[in-house]
Amino acid sequence: MNLPEKIGRQTVNLTFSPCIISSAGVVGKKEGDGPLGSEFDRVFEDGRMNEASWEKAESALQKSAVETALAKAGKSPEDIDIILAGDLLGQSMGTTFGIRGLSIPFAGLYGACSTMALSLATASLFVDSGAANTAVAATSSHFCSAEKQFRLPLEYGGQRPPQAQWTATAAGAAVIGREGGKITAECVTFGKICDLGITDANNMGAAMAPAAADTISVHFAETGLTPDYYDCIVTGDLGAVGSSLLYELLQKDYGLDISSRHKDCGLMIYDMNDRDVNSGGSGCGCSGAVICTHFMRRLSSGELGRILFVGTGALLSQLSPLQGESIPSIAHAVVLKGACNNA
Amino acid sequence: MNLPEKIGRQTVNLTFSPCIISSAGVVGKKEGDGPLGSEFDRVFEDGRMNEASWEKAESALQKSAVETALAKAGKSPEDIDIILAGDLLGQSMGTTFGIRGLSIPFAGLYGACSTMALSLATASLFVDSGAANTAVAATSSHFCSAEKQFRLPLEYGGQRPPQAQWTATAAGAAVIGREGGKITAECVTFGKICDLGITDANNMGAAMAPAAADTISVHFAETGLTPDYYDCIVTGDLGAVGSSLLYELLQKDYGLDISSRHKDCGLMIYDMNDRDVNSGGSGCGCSGAVICTHFMRRLSSGELGRILFVGTGALLSQLSPLQGESIPSIAHAVVLKGACNNA
Repeated sequence: MNLPEKIGRQTVNLTFSPCIISSAGVVGKKEGDGPLGSEFDRVFEDGRMNEASWEKAESALQKSAVETALAKAGKSPEDIDIILAGDLLGQSMGTTFGIRGLSIPFAGLYGACSTMALSLATASLFVDSGAANTAVAATSSHFCSAEKQFRLPLEYGGQRPPQAQWTATAAGAAVIGREGGKITAECVTFGKICDLGITDANNMGAAMAPAAADTISVHFAETGLTPDYYDCIVTGDLGAVGSSLLYELLQKDYGLDISSRHKDCGLMIYDMNDRDVNSGGSGCGCSGAVICTHFMRRLSSGELGRILFVGTGALLSQLSPLQGESIPSIAHAVVLKGACNNA
Repeated sequence: MNLPEKIGRQTVNLTFSPCIISSAGVVGKKEGDGPLGSEFDRVFEDGRMNEASWEKAESALQKSAVETALAKAGKSPEDIDIILAGDLLGQSMGTTFGIRGLSIPFAGLYGACSTMALSLATASLFVDSGAANTAVAATSSHFCSAEKQFRLPLEYGGQRPPQAQWTATAAGAAVIGREGGKITAECVTFGKICDLGITDANNMGAAMAPAAADTISVHFAETGLTPDYYDCIVTGDLGAVGSSLLYELLQKDYGLDISSRHKDCGLMIYDMNDRDVNSGGSGCGCSGAVICTHFMRRLSSGELGRILFVGTGALLSQLSPLQGESIPSIAHAVVLKGACNNA
């Protein structure tokens, strides 16, 4: 067994190649009605998931994703050494109340909508280093709990500007271990906080694009690779506005063109002709559910050989826009390869 | 170089023995007036730290702790591969806005008041595994931002019951690397969420005591050690109520007696004759500042040989008590030894 190999300040090669043993994505009705609807493991028709509050509904969603991933891996909670998870809600309420009954050792994460990448990266590192034999990475978001917290009460019926994104009601979870499954995590790049002064809490794409550009450019600089090394470079939820800004920033500042192989989970989860979703999907669960179903399935089948998944997060708080603050953002990256070396 | 050695489901020995190169604790006036006042690196006389909001004040506090620890280590932000940090505020606002200007790769954590232990544990693991050469662990809390968020507006002048604790205005930070400094992190034990049904958001000690008992008993079971192995077993912020419950739970459920070597940061940071603090101090920054000054100094001087630091966190949210929820809690543990093997 080898050690993780640090190849730059932000990038670590996972030399033991931890395996994604299983993964699961569960969603709400609107996401189930979208173009990826048939790919998700479960679609909740009731947005409240039979719970008494939006926050409890989100907890139920995350719990369902974790339990589904565990069942697919043939594991019980006692088989898991640690779960690394988080969400958008204050004090990560979706996560802590969702998983509290599972009795799995837990390290809470906060990466806003980058959480699926952050949890995959840290869980893979725990397994690669031997600190865990089997780990779970998970996250969730819920449109109603997020709107209530960050913007306006739903009952207010506020208008949403064209650059706004629609927080996905969705959760994703992956079980990572030393063997089993066809997908390996090969490399991780942890991001730095970037803040270019965007103050519009309805324009997450513009706030997050510089963080995505920073992490992607650092990844290529530290690995010596070029974009054509990957079959696909998948960002979390930049949406239409953020994706076009990302192309512009990468081209202008770093001479990198990723446009031909770029996909954005925020542009995939909904029918973009649905005017409600404006610039696309967002929320931790958006990339969580799309990576843990659509992309994992294609990596597993061999349709995709290797992808760079770049989760993007806007680190604003419930209060910070009201205090006139700009939106700090971050992006974390994980390389996923479609055939397990350790199987 | 060796790998981290997993010795149980929750416990990992750090075989490379990462060094605490430096640490710093900064506090507000009330904490500066307490029995440990002379030990802190900086006492802010102005509770607002010259900022426009309590949240921005907390960010300034955490930034000051990180910058002080870096200066003591003779390091600049560019020397740090990753900072692992978090706080109590929604979306970890104290942390993200505090450190955003430093341009250090960042993995956000959420462990409520256990965050100093969680960040020390994960940062030590990053260094031990080779994923980082030098890492920073940090956290903060602020009485005013916490009261405003979790309980009542200060202006309301609400009465506090005897079991309540006083959230410390304090921050702690440690720089962890492969060599330098006299203190090493030897072992970490990650905790599970425990929830025994406490619903009183003014009684954190009772909510957290079962989590502390669980992690401490697991640590001894997995390591095969007994309490007398440690010069001191330091809990984060159980306060008077939680500490006595911890003794009772450990004695009754596990036959462990730690009372003769137990200290609680929440019982150390204030003059316990100050009726305002009731059951003692709390908040991420309480154990953050006390561990990073008082205990690190005594480990460094040789006065203490080896301690078990058990950070305790109540994972309630701003909303969960209003929704009738009980308080899930967690405790993470780190073993700190007072003489660096790698120096």
